[in-house]
Amino acid sequence: MVNRVVALAGGVGGAKLASGLAAILPAGALTVIVNTGDDFDHLGLRICPDLDTVAYTLAGIANRRTGWGRSDETWSFLETLGHLGGPTWFRIGDRDLALHAYRTARLREGAALSAVVDEVRRAWNIGPRILPMSDDDVRTIVLTDEGDLAFQEYFVRRACEPRVHGFRFEGAQTARPAAGVLEAIAAADLVVVCPSNPWVSIDPILAIPGVREGVAARPVVAVSPFVGGRAVKGPAAKMAVELGLATTPQAVAGHYAGVVDGLVYDVADPDVGARLESAGILSLRTRTLMRSDRDRRRLAEDVMAFGESLVAVPVP
Amino acid sequence: MVNRVVALAGGVGGAKLASGLAAILPAGALTVIVNTGDDFDHLGLRICPDLDTVAYTLAGIANRRTGWGRSDETWSFLETLGHLGGPTWFRIGDRDLALHAYRTARLREGAALSAVVDEVRRAWNIGPRILPMSDDDVRTIVLTDEGDLAFQEYFVRRACEPRVHGFRFEGAQTARPAAGVLEAIAAADLVVVCPSNPWVSIDPILAIPGVREGVAARPVVAVSPFVGGRAVKGPAAKMAVELGLATTPQAVAGHYAGVVDGLVYDVADPDVGARLESAGILSLRTRTLMRSDRDRRRLAEDVMAFGESLVAVPVP
Repeated sequence: MVNRVVALAGGVGGAKLASGLAAILPAGALTVIVNTGDDFDHLGLRICPDLDTVAYTLAGIANRRTGWGRSDETWSFLETLGHLGGPTWFRIGDRDLALHAYRTARLREGAALSAVVDEVRRAWNIGPRILPMSDDDVRTIVLTDEGDLAFQEYFVRRACEPRVHGFRFEGAQTARPAAGVLEAIAAADLVVVCPSNPWVSIDPILAIPGVREGVAARPVVAVSPFVGGRAVKGPAAKMAVELGLATTPQAVAGHYAGVVDGLVYDVADPDVGARLESAGILSLRTRTLMRSDRDRRRLAEDVMAFGESLVAVPVP
Repeated sequence: MVNRVVALAGGVGGAKLASGLAAILPAGALTVIVNTGDDFDHLGLRICPDLDTVAYTLAGIANRRTGWGRSDETWSFLETLGHLGGPTWFRIGDRDLALHAYRTARLREGAALSAVVDEVRRAWNIGPRILPMSDDDVRTIVLTDEGDLAFQEYFVRRACEPRVHGFRFEGAQTARPAAGVLEAIAAADLVVVCPSNPWVSIDPILAIPGVREGVAARPVVAVSPFVGGRAVKGPAAKMAVELGLATTPQAVAGHYAGVVDGLVYDVADPDVGARLESAGILSLRTRTLMRSDRDRRRLAEDVMAFGESLVAVPVP
């Protein structure tokens, strides 16, 4: 029986599966642990892109067209900032800005990030628990042929153009998991690694002391972020190629070796179930693309059914 | 001949007369020196209410209905901040917020406030020079029967309710006038003290070392902020009563004794020209209420003609 589920999530793909899981699981069953390696300071504001995408998505107010920011948005702030010659490369809408300003003010008052996230969760009536991976600052640095770049520099300002040869998670070694993170993982009947970018969304979470070990000790299902060898969104496929890796289910399973027990991958990829199994990984080949709410729920149901089977049958 | 004019201004009333002066004076003739004693930090932003009101008014984008903030405004930020339980007592519109964010970011980069004000002036094609009284922090504290209150606490949060018994301008004694302030005053053929609050808009400017002496050495015309014994806007009349003062032209002349040579006051007040003259103050009784752009220009013309007469005829 799977009663308690922990999902590890980055931005869009992770948030979508988390919302599918939230839709089908009983209240209180789901805890989403979110990457904060992309967080950065801009215009004096602390911006947490993945936490916000997860919160907006679970609150049903995410902007479905752009994949970032929120619905019902206005742009007066950014337009006026542009008139003044201020920096507009990071697109902050007026409503989105309120969340950043609220968080920044609360952090300045001494509140922990996890406490602020929970305040936001309650303000927006979000059911699942949302935990930042850590209340301490961890910063993903992308090692490129143009030097080491802070994540948002690489991702937004440089539009993922520089060639990647590695990553560094600054502060991860000394960061403490946020209150509740290790407890939620230890109590999880199933851990779901969402179809987020393995290198810059999931790895920072696993880099927090105690998290990788805690996750590895539980039944774990990962969902491949690749569909037919391509990333649904973002630079995951480009990164894989530049790192000399394949964009296949086997490569994802290899990346998560020692952590995951089962892999869910898309029907657009060849059936590699036998090959995965010979490497000790059970798998489920199904539709993983989430275009609609129905897609999200269906994938969540597939993941849960697959997870139940892993929990019931001892992992080989 | 009056070629160079310096106007000392606070918020709304000062900004209106400054815009009237800007409309009738040749390009380059007007410098507006603005109170920064009301400045404060809110949500991590440096907010400069009087500088902004002057800039918005001179740029023709002030909100004429409210008397604060700007036209063409949207309120998504504040609405969302309210949903999150954040502080909404200080009403910041989305476009207004951009100015605060731009300024705060520039100040954090090490720019002087006066440099930032000039950047804003150029971005919005504002003709007159705008100078903050100082680049150093000066904070107006209102001494009340409920204790000492920071200006915005008194003005916005407490809606001017506590009874006033004095003022303190923290930091004024050691503040340096912003670059150009003393030079503009020394070069002025006429200094106009705008119809702003004498205690909390003009006095902080005069409290900056060197300013009162510099102004007193030039021909100076003040415009009374009272019309028929009442303040047009804001707490000036309430303050006068609580300080045991009258809301008359004589009281204003008395407050500015030693600094001003001439006083402009409203036709709604009794004719006290003879009494003022016996106290060494020349005066002009005219319409001072500025409802329209035409009112602003007309008052500016009256003030300039009166000023010309003061400059031509040696002060008694």
